[in-house]
Amino acid sequence: MLTHVLGAVKKPALCSRSAFTRGLKTVTLIPGDGIGPEISVAVMKIFEAAKTPIQWEERNVTAIQGPGGKWIIPPDCKESMDRTLIGLKGPLKTPIAAGHPSMNLLLRKTFDLYANVRPCVSIEGYKTPYTDVDLVTIRENTEGEYSGIEHIIVDGVVQSIKLITEDASRRIAEYAFEYARNNQRSSVTAVHKANIMRMSDGLFLRKCREVAENFKDIKFTEMYLDTVCLNMVQDPTQFDVLVMPNLYGDILSDLCAGLIGGLGVTPSGNIGANGVAIFESVHGTAPDIAGLDLANPTALLLSAVMMLRHMGMHDYGKKIETACFDTIRDKKVLTGDLGGKSKCSEFTEEICRRV
Amino acid sequence: MLTHVLGAVKKPALCSRSAFTRGLKTVTLIPGDGIGPEISVAVMKIFEAAKTPIQWEERNVTAIQGPGGKWIIPPDCKESMDRTLIGLKGPLKTPIAAGHPSMNLLLRKTFDLYANVRPCVSIEGYKTPYTDVDLVTIRENTEGEYSGIEHIIVDGVVQSIKLITEDASRRIAEYAFEYARNNQRSSVTAVHKANIMRMSDGLFLRKCREVAENFKDIKFTEMYLDTVCLNMVQDPTQFDVLVMPNLYGDILSDLCAGLIGGLGVTPSGNIGANGVAIFESVHGTAPDIAGLDLANPTALLLSAVMMLRHMGMHDYGKKIETACFDTIRDKKVLTGDLGGKSKCSEFTEEICRRV
Ligand SMILES: CC(C)[C@H](C(=O)O)[C@@H](O)C(=O)O
Ligand SMILES: CC(C)[C@H](C(=O)O)[C@@H](O)C(=O)O
Repeated sequence: MLTHVLGAVKKPALCSRSAFTRGLKTVTLIPGDGIGPEISVAVMKIFEAAKTPIQWEERNVTAIQGPGGKWIIPPDCKESMDRTLIGLKGPLKTPIAAGHPSMNLLLRKTFDLYANVRPCVSIEGYKTPYTDVDLVTIRENTEGEYSGIEHIIVDGVVQSIKLITEDASRRIAEYAFEYARNNQRSSVTAVHKANIMRMSDGLFLRKCREVAENFKDIKFTEMYLDTVCLNMVQDPTQFDVLVMPNLYGDILSDLCAGLIGGLGVTPSGNIGANGVAIFESVHGTAPDIAGLDLANPTALLLSAVMMLRHMGMHDYGKKIETACFDTIRDKKVLTGDLGGKSKCSEFTEEICRRV
Repeated sequence: MLTHVLGAVKKPALCSRSAFTRGLKTVTLIPGDGIGPEISVAVMKIFEAAKTPIQWEERNVTAIQGPGGKWIIPPDCKESMDRTLIGLKGPLKTPIAAGHPSMNLLLRKTFDLYANVRPCVSIEGYKTPYTDVDLVTIRENTEGEYSGIEHIIVDGVVQSIKLITEDASRRIAEYAFEYARNNQRSSVTAVHKANIMRMSDGLFLRKCREVAENFKDIKFTEMYLDTVCLNMVQDPTQFDVLVMPNLYGDILSDLCAGLIGGLGVTPSGNIGANGVAIFESVHGTAPDIAGLDLANPTALLLSAVMMLRHMGMHDYGKKIETACFDTIRDKKVLTGDLGGKSKCSEFTEEICRRV
């Protein structure tokens, strides 16, 4: 449990089940590894300060082998997610043992989290070469180059299979257009290499075009991935919502995070059907500073804000987001990676003070 | 022939075969479509002004169907390239007919141009959000996601095959390390997603590691493609030579071009075995301004400079490059895309004046 993290930090009351939990919504909290626990504590404290009606159900995630040697996530985490439907997750360490799956991929797969959504918005006061970035990458999260199907054809010749299906392509296109409509965004750009992968990216693109027909209020454009990358670094303000197959999303979402300051300040959400979703910071576990009260909780906090919006709690989301952005803009209490000298707990308290 | 372009432009003398061609090296010139012919004329004029000992052998390239309906490049172009070994190429229009191959891909394939090399260097006086970029992307140019092998598995399910071979991986890794050594560069970064495509990118990476063993004077690092993209937009000066499979190179080379001002100022070379090479501007044909004397010849000119270096004519290369960069830095005579009001021919004459 999180009480071992940062000795001095009182465990937020919301963390324990109590008589006061009526009317609260439960969220599965996966603190993760490395700096995960301490940034999770930061988020819990800020949520408590904002009186957010959330109670946390903490679960650890390490891959275990289920019946038949298949890798699964721990049953108590699965059970919790199946019940709460909503998860908030810190970073998980990359498995080093061969054959051991990436936990991030296993989570996406277990809960069929088919859409990875990453809003990239310039943060006032945090200087990068770009200003006014305000775009969202929507990545197909289940197939493509991530099929995991690979073969040795003959010695020295390997093939990897990229799998594109009509269903998954339509589903992600629909998600992107609905996202655009629900978030007052005006355009969706489909990112592809259908000039090279005519059949697979061609299918993806065709589905985007079909879905676009049903969203006449949203402008639809198509662009080659290489052209998007080139235009992105020249003028990211020309983009709004972008939708793309799995690998392109992996690349483009990180590129866009770079434009606004990196993974330390970029939120992420993995969305499935029927309301299931896991929100996560996508930075690493930073083992070198773990436990030293130096980590920046912003990415996890902004992911938690995305989560609140997903749950319909827009006012709480706004309140916390504003407190976080104000703290960064004021530049007085910042963690080291943001250019300051404050500890994680001081940065956290400053945000708490403002909510 | 190029005399029809820009009525007033005198055809450079080097263009015609004459008694003065002894001691000249012959290069196959593929002017290309759209603005291709006028920027080719610009390059020829500048080469003439610099007294470069090159004579041009002009060839048109449009795909034609050979025996058995196979698409081939015109035999007279093939014959010329087989003899001269060196080509300079303007933009070719993207085929619109289904089944018609990309001419760029067909050229790479016909001459087995296995390495695409793109130096990206910040140009003084041409402002972008970045300064001091000085890196080279080296892209495997023959396989990977560009295998062209795709299937419909069942209705609505398509697979594309990414093919990685030991031979092509070793060959491109060797090229990258030799390039680094020959060009006084200190590090090579292998770009991959071997965490996802463990077998294919794994093979590529293994070959890079093996080759690195033979180049102890060059620092070797490995980095995930997504991480490279993120770091690239945050601080491109941390990179030197980067080597990667085909699609990643397509993406990253365009991204890096964006950092220094786009495809209008970025040179490119496609290198094969035994000295064969085609140098090309990688921007489009810009049909909207074709024939209006408005095009910027810089990308083709800098590609021609790469060509001179490839041919061992370093002094001529340096002279022309300096004249081009000085013209841009001075900001007095610039084409529209560079922020000026001059015509292509005026910009060209200014460079001629300086060589
Ligand atoms: C951890 C890794 C498997 C993952 C990916 O490649 O998708 C990561 O880069 C991401 O974007 O979530
Ligand atoms: C024209 C196209 C086939 C090509 C590619 O995708 O390789 C282009 O983008 C390039 O980089 O040369």
